Amino acid sequence: MSKRVALISTGEELLTGETVDTNSAWLAASLWDHGLIARRMLTAGDDLEGLNWALSAAGDVADLVICTGGLGPTEDDRTAEAVAAWAGQSLVENSEALSQIEARYRARGREVSAANRKQALLPAEAVVLENRWGSAPAFAVQRGGTQVFCLPGVPVEMRKIFEAHLSPQLVVDDPPTLVRIRTFGVAESRLQAMMAKLDLGAADLGFRAHIPEVQIKLRFGPQVPEEDRSAVTATICGALGDAVFSVDGGDLASTVIERLTSADQTVALAESCTAGMISAWLADVAGASAVLMESAVVYSNAAKTRAVGVDADLILAHGAVSEPVARALAEGMRARAGTTWGIGVTGIAGPGGGTEAKPRGTVHIAVAGPEGTVHQHAVIPGTRAQVRRRAAGAALALLLKSC
Amino acid sequence: MSKRVALISTGEELLTGETVDTNSAWLAASLWDHGLIARRMLTAGDDLEGLNWALSAAGDVADLVICTGGLGPTEDDRTAEAVAAWAGQSLVENSEALSQIEARYRARGREVSAANRKQALLPAEAVVLENRWGSAPAFAVQRGGTQVFCLPGVPVEMRKIFEAHLSPQLVVDDPPTLVRIRTFGVAESRLQAMMAKLDLGAADLGFRAHIPEVQIKLRFGPQVPEEDRSAVTATICGALGDAVFSVDGGDLASTVIERLTSADQTVALAESCTAGMISAWLADVAGASAVLMESAVVYSNAAKTRAVGVDADLILAHGAVSEPVARALAEGMRARAGTTWGIGVTGIAGPGGGTEAKPRGTVHIAVAGPEGTVHQHAVIPGTRAQVRRRAAGAALALLLKSC
Repeated sequence: MSKRVALISTGEELLTGETVDTNSAWLAASLWDHGLIARRMLTAGDDLEGLNWALSAAGDVADLVICTGGLGPTEDDRTAEAVAAWAGQSLVENSEALSQIEARYRARGREVSAANRKQALLPAEAVVLENRWGSAPAFAVQRGGTQVFCLPGVPVEMRKIFEAHLSPQLVVDDPPTLVRIRTFGVAESRLQAMMAKLDLGAADLGFRAHIPEVQIKLRFGPQVPEEDRSAVTATICGALGDAVFSVDGGDLASTVIERLTSADQTVALAESCTAGMISAWLADVAGASAVLMESAVVYSNAAKTRAVGVDADLILAHGAVSEPVARALAEGMRARAGTTWGIGVTGIAGPGGGTEAKPRGTVHIAVAGPEGTVHQHAVIPGTRAQVRRRAAGAALALLLKSC
Repeated sequence: MSKRVALISTGEELLTGETVDTNSAWLAASLWDHGLIARRMLTAGDDLEGLNWALSAAGDVADLVICTGGLGPTEDDRTAEAVAAWAGQSLVENSEALSQIEARYRARGREVSAANRKQALLPAEAVVLENRWGSAPAFAVQRGGTQVFCLPGVPVEMRKIFEAHLSPQLVVDDPPTLVRIRTFGVAESRLQAMMAKLDLGAADLGFRAHIPEVQIKLRFGPQVPEEDRSAVTATICGALGDAVFSVDGGDLASTVIERLTSADQTVALAESCTAGMISAWLADVAGASAVLMESAVVYSNAAKTRAVGVDADLILAHGAVSEPVARALAEGMRARAGTTWGIGVTGIAGPGGGTEAKPRGTVHIAVAGPEGTVHQHAVIPGTRAQVRRRAAGAALALLLKSC
């Protein structure tokens, strides 16, 4: 089955940026689970001109179109009208839709208003899809080889109707398989260079930068056997070495939590420039409380000394952003909290604070553990937020290499 | 000025539903702030066929097209190639783009790879838009009456380039005026109800939920005088009271930093369930280091006692998630760090850990200051991430009410 699929989302709130189009993303992910890819997505407003444009642009390239929104009772709900015009059908009161609306209102002891009655006006040959989760009737219309499904824009109704009426029709015999390799610390262009000479067999390759990590996505057709997929995956992991931190697994923080949980180990952090970001990432993983014992956000020198026990003279001698202070933060925190691992991060996130010797973006990271302390130094480019995110990622990656 | 605007977003990750298209929503909102509406949005994959389709469909209906994504160094980055074909131009190495890439790599002491060099291949008549935030060159191309701007898909780069290069060109003769009232702690539907009977004059009203805050956007036509705008704004602020924390100002964290900086005051935090999130939010504001002295992430009971001095018997008597412990965290942290303000947060973020007496989402927050300690208790609905974000927001809002 290789249906060509397009999605249409409608609503002025999408055009003004007030609402992010999560409906299309949800539908795309659901279609993907069925082995289908929504090759085109379009968004238009509530006006007939926009709806006509979207239907005609989508209808030209797809044989399955899913349209969300514009089925409500108000004057700016015009999807049925636009679809009727696109399909060359008249707009008529659909008795099945009307009786569903009446039943719904009767059950609540309420009258059906003229506005609600309008919702039963559908293209003459529409097939009604029962909506048990709201009052807007959903429907399907066919024109030539193209089928258009119209679903309400309210996410919960849209999802339920998709699952009840569309999903059963979309069963694909041979869905593709996706393998996701997550990497840290190597730029996308360098990853590609490192993989340039590898034999990737029938894998379809994609990259996705999601600061601070880069994901490599491998898509295999349904006929590729499991051992071939594993072989390609192993080849890539071998070539990328340390840069890979998970295959079909979680992000850096959840990989750390998983690894330490299964080893029955714990961690504590002393964060200066990252200021709690690493701790917050770890804590976002359910079950973190068994691993993350405590952290100190030690912006001021006084706090570094008082809360983590860093020698004030050490700070005076080397500066707060230095290898000895990063090491003292990691070791001091590990000792105070009595954890398996201690992490220390100190740096200059900017925009101010940089010097020639220690430019903006300078970061010192240390990880203290049962076998000693490792240290890493980097000058990270980018904005304050980027420096902080990349430093946080680097600290977790350094821990993963150590543990 | 009534430019017809279309947005194109590209990337397989959008078509598979892995990524929600926040870039288009951000661009739409920014255009709206300039008095422009993106009448059409289109999404295609990384394939030339899809890109060609999007450019031709958008170019037919718009005189300004903004396209995001597909400018990276890898083989699946094909936007420049597609735009060149659409504009009828050849793809040539752009010396300005190349020298920007070279300068960027040289500054990092790295070689320019063949893949990076490919990023300088642009349509022959492209105008390069300097990208100081990443390596992907952005550019603009004109065909007939239609101008296409191609921006990187990485959100931070896209936003910075939009602000630096597009925003100044989008000056509208009679722009509408936008007033943004930022609120916290009251649901959108309730805000709407509280404002239902207010006289909003000629204001166009919009709401935007951005967890943990809700923004109220007032759009005034160019002919509305300043005093009328102020009067409407004052009416709304009066009706919403404490829920409003800024008018045309920053978010909760930057409002806190601004307020404390101008009062020459400082803050320290003891975070349990929020685990560094509040500190990280504050630290994301440039200049935070003068205000945020230190924080302790105290997940374990032992850490609450050791790092902040909370009496172990108090925790035994009331439990870690309780009013007395929240107060002790705030007061202990304030005393240890010697700051003007101390914040303590303890709660059950879930998914586990809830009991009948203290259900999941239970949060106790305390703010200790020169005139004593205030406390707030809430049971916050939602996922682990939502509970933590809302608790972090509530802590900052409580500080703003106190200081």
